[in-house]
Amino acid sequence: MLDGLFRPRSVAVIGASTKELQIGNRIVKNLLDFGFKGPIYPINPKGEDVRGVKAYASILDVPTDVDVAHIIIPAKLVPQAIEDCGKKQVKFVILNGGGFAEVGAEGAAIQDACIAAATKNGIRIMGPNCQGVINTDPNVRAYCNFTFTRPDPGFISIVALSGGVAELIHQAFAEQGIGTRMYASNGNACDVSIPEILRYYGDDEGTRVIVLYVEGLRDPKTFLEVARAVTQKKPILAMKAGRTLEGAKAAASHTGGMAREDLSTDLIFDKTGILSFRDEAELCQAAAAFAVQPAPRGNRVGMITNTGGPAVISTDVFVGGGLQIPTLPEKSEKILKENMLPEAAIHNPLDVLATAGPAHLRAALDAFMDEDAFDSVYLNLVTPFFVDAEGIAKQIVEVNQARRKPLVCNLMTDRRQWAETVRILKEGGVPCYSFPGTAARALVALTRYNALRSREIGVVAQFDDVARSQVAAIVQRARAAGRTMLSSAEVYNILGGYGIPVAAWRLADDASAAARAATEIGFPVVIKADTASIVHKSDVGGIVANLQDAGAVRATVEAMRKKFDAPDLRFFVQKFLPGGREIIIGAKAEPELGHLIMFGLGGIYVEVLKDVVFQLTPVTDVEARAMLSSIKAARLLKGVRGEKGVSENALVEIIQRLSQLLTDAPMIQELDLNPVIAFEDRAFVADARASAAQ
Amino acid sequence: MLDGLFRPRSVAVIGASTKELQIGNRIVKNLLDFGFKGPIYPINPKGEDVRGVKAYASILDVPTDVDVAHIIIPAKLVPQAIEDCGKKQVKFVILNGGGFAEVGAEGAAIQDACIAAATKNGIRIMGPNCQGVINTDPNVRAYCNFTFTRPDPGFISIVALSGGVAELIHQAFAEQGIGTRMYASNGNACDVSIPEILRYYGDDEGTRVIVLYVEGLRDPKTFLEVARAVTQKKPILAMKAGRTLEGAKAAASHTGGMAREDLSTDLIFDKTGILSFRDEAELCQAAAAFAVQPAPRGNRVGMITNTGGPAVISTDVFVGGGLQIPTLPEKSEKILKENMLPEAAIHNPLDVLATAGPAHLRAALDAFMDEDAFDSVYLNLVTPFFVDAEGIAKQIVEVNQARRKPLVCNLMTDRRQWAETVRILKEGGVPCYSFPGTAARALVALTRYNALRSREIGVVAQFDDVARSQVAAIVQRARAAGRTMLSSAEVYNILGGYGIPVAAWRLADDASAAARAATEIGFPVVIKADTASIVHKSDVGGIVANLQDAGAVRATVEAMRKKFDAPDLRFFVQKFLPGGREIIIGAKAEPELGHLIMFGLGGIYVEVLKDVVFQLTPVTDVEARAMLSSIKAARLLKGVRGEKGVSENALVEIIQRLSQLLTDAPMIQELDLNPVIAFEDRAFVADARASAAQ
Repeated sequence: MLDGLFRPRSVAVIGASTKELQIGNRIVKNLLDFGFKGPIYPINPKGEDVRGVKAYASILDVPTDVDVAHIIIPAKLVPQAIEDCGKKQVKFVILNGGGFAEVGAEGAAIQDACIAAATKNGIRIMGPNCQGVINTDPNVRAYCNFTFTRPDPGFISIVALSGGVAELIHQAFAEQGIGTRMYASNGNACDVSIPEILRYYGDDEGTRVIVLYVEGLRDPKTFLEVARAVTQKKPILAMKAGRTLEGAKAAASHTGGMAREDLSTDLIFDKTGILSFRDEAELCQAAAAFAVQPAPRGNRVGMITNTGGPAVISTDVFVGGGLQIPTLPEKSEKILKENMLPEAAIHNPLDVLATAGPAHLRAALDAFMDEDAFDSVYLNLVTPFFVDAEGIAKQIVEVNQARRKPLVCNLMTDRRQWAETVRILKEGGVPCYSFPGTAARALVALTRYNALRSREIGVVAQFDDVARSQVAAIVQRARAAGRTMLSSAEVYNILGGYGIPVAAWRLADDASAAARAATEIGFPVVIKADTASIVHKSDVGGIVANLQDAGAVRATVEAMRKKFDAPDLRFFVQKFLPGGREIIIGAKAEPELGHLIMFGLGGIYVEVLKDVVFQLTPVTDVEARAMLSSIKAARLLKGVRGEKGVSENALVEIIQRLSQLLTDAPMIQELDLNPVIAFEDRAFVADARASAAQ
Repeated sequence: MLDGLFRPRSVAVIGASTKELQIGNRIVKNLLDFGFKGPIYPINPKGEDVRGVKAYASILDVPTDVDVAHIIIPAKLVPQAIEDCGKKQVKFVILNGGGFAEVGAEGAAIQDACIAAATKNGIRIMGPNCQGVINTDPNVRAYCNFTFTRPDPGFISIVALSGGVAELIHQAFAEQGIGTRMYASNGNACDVSIPEILRYYGDDEGTRVIVLYVEGLRDPKTFLEVARAVTQKKPILAMKAGRTLEGAKAAASHTGGMAREDLSTDLIFDKTGILSFRDEAELCQAAAAFAVQPAPRGNRVGMITNTGGPAVISTDVFVGGGLQIPTLPEKSEKILKENMLPEAAIHNPLDVLATAGPAHLRAALDAFMDEDAFDSVYLNLVTPFFVDAEGIAKQIVEVNQARRKPLVCNLMTDRRQWAETVRILKEGGVPCYSFPGTAARALVALTRYNALRSREIGVVAQFDDVARSQVAAIVQRARAAGRTMLSSAEVYNILGGYGIPVAAWRLADDASAAARAATEIGFPVVIKADTASIVHKSDVGGIVANLQDAGAVRATVEAMRKKFDAPDLRFFVQKFLPGGREIIIGAKAEPELGHLIMFGLGGIYVEVLKDVVFQLTPVTDVEARAMLSSIKAARLLKGVRGEKGVSENALVEIIQRLSQLLTDAPMIQELDLNPVIAFEDRAFVADARASAAQ
């Protein structure tokens, strides 16, 4: 539990300085200015008072218990300071300073010493190289942080490793008067972690929405588990930066991490129901709506405006975001015709006209809130000088506070001339935006959250007819033979052991054996040269397909024997399956997480159109089916232009069985089923490759 | 010339009221409050002073000339008021009131009467049903408008039919202290038009950037011509709303226009070099950068930051927007190593660290401005309490004012605590944003403008070997016969007349003639039943392909004769071209503009993947080539997986010849070349359909 960190009863500042531009001075000032409810204990060796607060020469001299101790002294002295904190039974230390793992090996050693000292003394570490935490709860008012943003109390809690971006978001909320509940930036994060903080925010009643920024995930398994639980309770709005390779490089340069293409963070966000954003401004604006509005129960929006154009912009955004704008039902139309100005446009969007007054707006809002055809209400409001804007605002707030449905508002006004109108709406919990598109995007986000929260996730199938121990044995034998690349026979045996259908095959040493095998399997067959010395068989003529009789098989084998003079050369004889649609299903290990499974159509669809989708193991039935339907060429699986469709059930089962195989055999590094040939009633693996971790 | 409208020497307000909540009162107040430099003449029948300004009973009583007269009286009285204005030789009338074409037929008749009165008297009309204009030029200060936004003088001029959106943009600039040069919203736009206003802004020296909002274009040809000229002088940033069908409906409902899918506005924006936006907030933020920064000469950006994470976000946006982030060249690396803090990360992005002071930032900016590898500079600046932020700001401004390269800044600060820092940067012409992505998008827009302005547009080929008069004659004959749908022979003759290659064909009346024709053409052939009674021939067995000899031709014709018992039945015998790639090239008339040409690959590419692109006639060589390269499957045209590519020159020539044909024959409504079969060395039309306007 992080209560001691976020709700400290007392805070010490080890390294508190009398110099104003020192962090150790600033933290004392921040705690004082923010009205921290507990005692503050500046610790400095000279014992000089800091900002008028009585200081102590040592933490051991402090008269009461200490929940949190900031330590802002040279890195090499920090482990000893943690030992001292141990004697004082301090619960949490916040290490704001730098000079730890982020600067290299020497710093990393100091960081390790800190962890050792903390573990020994039962102390938790926030940081090092971090900003710290803030809690705006009126009973706490903890500003355990050296930055400068002064948050209003609110309902949004922020967490990010990157202090820069955490601060950026925090500033946006402060500048727009949106408010913050809690704030945490844990820098090097050697102990207190993002998942732990997420879990804490999840349990905090004052937090209605969580904002998260990441450039990658450490311990993704724990993250996944925690995030999945938290999103059921409240929304997590997140942004992952470093999406482009250049962005990943920039992220690596300031975090000391590795620059690599990261597909899994997005998949984790999706799997756990985190609302993902590509634009940090949009994220902040959406968070403001989540702070004061419930999520709608569906995607049907009723739109009210008192000026035309902005509603057009919002309509485009709603439709682009998957919302529906239902036709206004007759019952509501009738009510509105009686209550609106005669020239008003009684549709959805409803244009009440700029001349509409408080009673018109009230009637319009009531009708829309009562209308079963709408799940949410969007309001575009301009404040012409000739109407009673404050009166209108009061009506909106009354309707809003009945909380029948979520409401967002694009408010077109001069915020200085109409300050009171703005105040009424804000205090009444109406999220107001300065652009119709921005307001609409916030409502789209509320609607997306509802869809995520209420969607069916499906179940991970457990197949019993699998040969689990056989897989490990095969991989172990290959490793023992010094190979990470498995032979075709090994791969097919593994697949066979997991019930993944493979086109019938035999291994043959020579032409006669091959011809015999082909006869057993049934013609036509394909012959593949099988030797560790050739990797890309098809490029060098190592595959000959569609052989119709034993003679052709013999001739092919003889020709290959002349061509590939390898001591381990054998011949892979396999049923040739003409027709059918080529599918690629691939898998790749994701460190500390599981495997990424890729699905796509073969040939130009993967090579030219890059039309592939990914999912993380374990893959549920619903997820597997969604993989099939989310490629752009999904309609081809159903059959188009008179062609037959393919068995989606067969493909879904292959993905599920593959997922179970990979979960059981994490040492498999890569596994490509390429192609899988799919027919109307079944699907077979026609070729496969696999490698194991060393 | 619109000087009289935007730079009036005097303004009369016909219908000026003493009642504060009347528009006729508000306009007088707005002119007064904004400090209009000329005389204001309230006109009201009782002659009561308005807001302390002497009023006149009639416009004819006014002692001086009148450039602009607002008319705010009931619609039916407006035509007479315009007549009166004529007697007074008023130059422009602004009709702010409603009750004209936007309310139906009766209003439209009044609007027509206004136009007649104005034409007769040499008066120009702004509106009706419009807000009017604003000019912030210190020598003019004309607030000829009844809204409430108080603009600071600036360099951005705004134009939109929709008063709501014009006002929205105007408010955004006012709220963010960005400033406005001129403002115009012309409502029903019965006379003074958007192109005219664009041209005026284009000639106005004080306007550096134009912001345009449309929901569709009237008189698109004039718009195209004017916009093309203006964008060579200064950027036009535009947004088109009503993109979705629902959005188009919403637009139609408040403009009285027709709801239809609109592809051409985007194409016109692209053709004319207008910078198009999908998000009105992003448009406004970009405009703020254009107002104070030049466009970069290329797409290579140098990034400086004093905190890590935000630079990662910006990097993603830059890369997504087509910018490059070059590796820092050695020369600059050396300079920076000597001038930065020892722990600074000397790369691009350059992290100068939060502890960097004015001298560090100055050295970093100078190095980046001098570095030939960068075309523009992005700065991410947080203002920690321990550095001299104002000193840093002064250095940034000095560097900026040398105007070596465009600079945009993401400023992470508390705008209240660091008000002076913000002021220094703003007055120094440094565009500052509150989000790194927002700042980056503004720089992407600057870079896009440079690319648009400096791109090669190409030339419209003029083919001389075309049979222009023949086309008109064919269409006329069809019309005379009561047909809008042309027969295959007519279509092929038209295509042939324009040098568009068609697979060799003959028309035959019976089986023997067909067999003879097939022999002449050479086998294999395809037979198509030719009768006006069948539209979708292939659906009913009206096409039989790949006939190898005369017997097969005869049998096919006999079978079709039995099947289709139409009096006009004939048989289309055409060379069958096996192999090759199926292409679709289509055309559709765009009212008042020309034709839309569509290009895509046939089959599933168009049906399932919707992989098609559009262009407007006349299509230049560069545009035609860009159509080929901008489909997603463009690589297929080059040849993949061992397949041969197709002749792109042949396809480009077909598009160009088609463009010329359509330009010469605007009465062609639709023309589909489907399929065109393309080979390595040539391309042929294998089937085509066309219809003419009635």
